[in-house]
Amino acid sequence: MATQVIVLNGGSSSGKTGIVRCLQAVLPEPWLAFAIDTFVDSMPASLRDSLVSSDGGVNIGPEFTRLEAAWREGVAATVRAGARVVIDDVFLGGAESQERWRKPLVGLDVLWVGVRCEAAVAAGREIARGDRVRGMAEQQAELVHRGVEYDVEVDTAHTESLDCARTIAAAVLSGSR
Amino acid sequence: MATQVIVLNGGSSSGKTGIVRCLQAVLPEPWLAFAIDTFVDSMPASLRDSLVSSDGGVNIGPEFTRLEAAWREGVAATVRAGARVVIDDVFLGGAESQERWRKPLVGLDVLWVGVRCEAAVAAGREIARGDRVRGMAEQQAELVHRGVEYDVEVDTAHTESLDCARTIAAAVLSGSR
Amino acid sequence: MATQVIVLNGGSSSGKTGIVRCLQAVLPEPWLAFAIDTFVDSMPASLRDSLVSSDGGVNIGPEFTRLEAAWREGVAATVRAGARVVIDDVFLGGAESQERWRKPLVGLDVLWVGVRCEAAVAAGREIARGDRVRGMAEQQAELVHRGVEYDVEVDTAHTESLDCARTIAAAVLSGSR
Amino acid sequence: MATQVIVLNGGSSSGKTGIVRCLQAVLPEPWLAFAIDTFVDSMPASLRDSLVSSDGGVNIGPEFTRLEAAWREGVAATVRAGARVVIDDVFLGGAESQERWRKPLVGLDVLWVGVRCEAAVAAGREIARGDRVRGMAEQQAELVHRGVEYDVEVDTAHTESLDCARTIAAAVLSGSR
Repeated sequence: MATQVIVLNGGSSSGKTGIVRCLQAVLPEPWLAFAIDTFVDSMPASLRDSLVSSDGGVNIGPEFTRLEAAWREGVAATVRAGARVVIDDVFLGGAESQERWRKPLVGLDVLWVGVRCEAAVAAGREIARGDRVRGMAEQQAELVHRGVEYDVEVDTAHTESLDCARTIAAAVLSGSR
Repeated sequence: MATQVIVLNGGSSSGKTGIVRCLQAVLPEPWLAFAIDTFVDSMPASLRDSLVSSDGGVNIGPEFTRLEAAWREGVAATVRAGARVVIDDVFLGGAESQERWRKPLVGLDVLWVGVRCEAAVAAGREIARGDRVRGMAEQQAELVHRGVEYDVEVDTAHTESLDCARTIAAAVLSGSR
Repeated sequence: MATQVIVLNGGSSSGKTGIVRCLQAVLPEPWLAFAIDTFVDSMPASLRDSLVSSDGGVNIGPEFTRLEAAWREGVAATVRAGARVVIDDVFLGGAESQERWRKPLVGLDVLWVGVRCEAAVAAGREIARGDRVRGMAEQQAELVHRGVEYDVEVDTAHTESLDCARTIAAAVLSGSR
Repeated sequence: MATQVIVLNGGSSSGKTGIVRCLQAVLPEPWLAFAIDTFVDSMPASLRDSLVSSDGGVNIGPEFTRLEAAWREGVAATVRAGARVVIDDVFLGGAESQERWRKPLVGLDVLWVGVRCEAAVAAGREIARGDRVRGMAEQQAELVHRGVEYDVEVDTAHTESLDCARTIAAAVLSGSR
């Protein structure tokens, strides 16, 4: 069975978005990219602005949780309607976050990808990109992988985005899971 | 029955996005914003770059049509899962485009909103915003409204975005359709 | 003598940037656009982030003032080296801010343009654009024009950006001051 | 004598902007960042849009050359007025481009920095960032360094931006040239 969904999980500034763009370039079929950051941008400014505190911590309230669950259903329905989708998420709840995706994606062929980047490197890249609250990268680097199960893992501290994408694409195309 | 989806239709540079942000600010409940532009940004660069020609014309191919249909199913599923959603679209096919939304949204309480802006004004705003191919605004200003049925119409050439949003919000809150 | 510099002054969300883009489109010769916002973006993140408080107030410290003076010298030197330049600024100090530009621009042919927009309209556009701290537009709408002398004034609450630009361009091309 | 200007030269997608942000974070004094990309953004859309061809080649016309020279004078004047400045440029003309900077910067204490990144790596990062015409990175990777003399060289293919910035900052602070 062919992979229908690729879920990338990694901390802030771990390089997920760059890998997604490379994946879209190297995979032979067109894949849509859905990101938790785009979901956050779709929220009212009042909800969005209270999300990240000044030390880089993320505060998830019940309204966010409710809307995020609806968003996941929507992404899953997009796949069921025939689109290949790459999801770029940050599993702040580790294994529990993965579980929240498993339900809407049940029955679909999913490739789970861990995007690792050691905390110090991600923190440096957070400074270099200049558009993120400082501290998110370091706080999330290990946290998001706790208890999560992957089909493929890549390490952006030592591998370029394009090479990470090629590794993932090979797993997609082999389809052996 | 309470409005669950607001669909805004208008040509490029007619001011839809500004109205959406104002709607999110004035409506008492949180609404998610989904835009055709965000969908286009989720596509691979190769598909996206071939979409708008240098004169501002838009070239929809079969792959785009197929993925867009899947996206519409996903937006509808997000609503069915309990999120209120504002959709910001450009009905290049007029009434036919509206029909393509009616199917996935069937059974939901939808408010259809026409965002009008006379061609000359929209063309001027296209120059002022500076991030769109010249010609799109003028080509789309009338075209997108052909045969489309609305619950509310607003005119951004003569009304500020916030006032347009208040008109739409009043219709949402009255819920009388 | 031909106009060498156009200085646009107006509050946040009064529509200066849109007018600048239209001016660049309608003026027959190429004009460079320099904006106080671009200058702010050129500062270190630590200085930049402390600039606007959560109520939309702007806090100018001595380091900012010193660097801004150097920036003005640089813009003036660009003009003296032969480039036509449109400056997009916010005169938080009113007449005093104008005086600070007069010194580096002395001997050059300057067109001073007031970009007016009533506070309530600018505040609505601030919500519509969604990328500014709420409150800046209202606080600055009147303040920035106090005691400032203009060659041309435009009102974006009642005139489209492109028409404002045409009015300014006519003054540039007539050159009669 | 203390360094007053840092000039970073490197090809497209070599990582200059990230290094500049890190430099601004690690240097104890505030430094302003001026980039050739920001200069290009200050030009009228008509000039800007014709600059990069579809294969990633860059077409410099006489108007661009004239305005760029005026911009360099402006940057130099900003430094002479007391601001520390980091310049982020692409020496398409190699040694000749460096010479064009030497004239306006004469008498100032300049640190020349080469930002190297092997062509294949830069080309991969060009795909990952997704906002550049494909081909620029590869065409410029070697070209921009031809005959250029540096005080410091960094290699972003093997060193993180923050570490590159620390190397450059050490040279700035030692001031020994």
